[in-house]
Amino acid sequence: METTLKSEKKEVKISFDAPFVIIGEKINPTGRKKLAAALTEGDDDYVRQLAISQVEAGADILDVNVGVPGLDEVAVLPKVARLVSEVVEAPLCLDSANHKALAAALADLPGKPLVNSVNGEEKSLGAVLPVVKEFGVSVIGLTMDDSGIPNDAETRVAIAEKILERAARLGIPANDVVIDPLVLTVGADSMAAAITLQTIQLLRQEFSVNINLGASNVSFGLPDRHTVNQAFLSLAMGVGATCAITDPIKLASTIRATDLLMGRDTYGARYIGYWREHQPPKEAA
Amino acid sequence: METTLKSEKKEVKISFDAPFVIIGEKINPTGRKKLAAALTEGDDDYVRQLAISQVEAGADILDVNVGVPGLDEVAVLPKVARLVSEVVEAPLCLDSANHKALAAALADLPGKPLVNSVNGEEKSLGAVLPVVKEFGVSVIGLTMDDSGIPNDAETRVAIAEKILERAARLGIPANDVVIDPLVLTVGADSMAAAITLQTIQLLRQEFSVNINLGASNVSFGLPDRHTVNQAFLSLAMGVGATCAITDPIKLASTIRATDLLMGRDTYGARYIGYWREHQPPKEAA
Repeated sequence: METTLKSEKKEVKISFDAPFVIIGEKINPTGRKKLAAALTEGDDDYVRQLAISQVEAGADILDVNVGVPGLDEVAVLPKVARLVSEVVEAPLCLDSANHKALAAALADLPGKPLVNSVNGEEKSLGAVLPVVKEFGVSVIGLTMDDSGIPNDAETRVAIAEKILERAARLGIPANDVVIDPLVLTVGADSMAAAITLQTIQLLRQEFSVNINLGASNVSFGLPDRHTVNQAFLSLAMGVGATCAITDPIKLASTIRATDLLMGRDTYGARYIGYWREHQPPKEAA
Repeated sequence: METTLKSEKKEVKISFDAPFVIIGEKINPTGRKKLAAALTEGDDDYVRQLAISQVEAGADILDVNVGVPGLDEVAVLPKVARLVSEVVEAPLCLDSANHKALAAALADLPGKPLVNSVNGEEKSLGAVLPVVKEFGVSVIGLTMDDSGIPNDAETRVAIAEKILERAARLGIPANDVVIDPLVLTVGADSMAAAITLQTIQLLRQEFSVNINLGASNVSFGLPDRHTVNQAFLSLAMGVGATCAITDPIKLASTIRATDLLMGRDTYGARYIGYWREHQPPKEAA
């Protein structure tokens, strides 16, 4: 199954047979004080810099989240999305739970962005899916609902099925719904990642949908988070994840290596090309 | 399926439900001039140091290979194996294609070492399996035969089946045969790792045997080999590999992280304990 996102000038395809798609996570003020201040004060240059540096580091798509308490998302999300779209060619992933902010940004953006996100809650399905349909875009569906995040794979898969069905009823095809199986930190529950991996496997078997990961939560609270994040990305790619909202600066090399090992990089051209552009020349270890 | 190896004082179990087993690769003179010299000159202290440092870094088993051109393996393998077994408690993996050297070392060692290796060639099956049977030990079976290394998964699985059948005929049970699906470098063939991963999946489905990797070949000739080796270990563990002959100093943290993510490390105790022992204290990133 193939999900196609577009900016004015660029098209990105997400599919199991293509290289993994990196959605840059850094334009999100949660836990980033400097960005929160920049968004509040209208420091556009800082936002532009975050956009450019992520694309240079290998991001294919950029997540844009302006969720600062007190800020009017309906006014600010379109403005920041437009700003980012003017400095990079990457399609955007509009990250908001506010359907009015999503609609306002979609009305103003060229191409076919990704909406992040809908979930299985009635309120979310009822508010977000009509906007996705109206603008003919794609959406990330989170496997949680009014009862929270299930702690077993089967119930998460059932929520994914519900989201896919509700989307289909509105005429949104399955290839415009990217399922996010959610991952909690293994620091709190040592089965957390195993459940997510099992969910990915089942989703791939049953629906062949594209699968997104919020790939940095998994290591929260643990030492040497980078090693855990690297291992999780490789494991998740191995069982069927096709894109992730993550830090391209830290994780693009692991993603390129995993694509190569999975046979998605003929002659290793992407892997070696990435290394040449991003690493100081040194002896191969 | 469970494979049990023993030294005089320590038992190591290899199984899909247990943490991944690390077989330290460094007591092998191929490409290690200093060790080749130490073996030739009888510099026992250098060998002892290699043994101790690998166990400290997380090796569960130590590979012992004395293959220096001109050196008498039948005399030297037992001597070095004995030497190593006197300074570490880890069971050994006796690494030689010479069945006389293997028999001489096995006659002299307590416990139940692992023999590395037999393969599908008639000559190898005929020479090595009787020694494995005589000493009641376990053996690594490489999926290659008189025609070389097949470049498809199905033929490698067929060779594994042949090795398992020939072992069974001699009374060697399947849990004493650890299959190594072999990995060539993705630098020369960009499908090389994908074929190995597919072989692992098939072997696990069809025989449930334990599966070993020679995990460093995969990145030969590529830049930033460490990232490729890390990603390959996580991918291979995800599909069913249960042990690897690898560098514990560089790769134990990735292996511990992958075990944690696969749900094999309750409360993350092994992962966190390993980090505490091996990393300088620093802020979690």
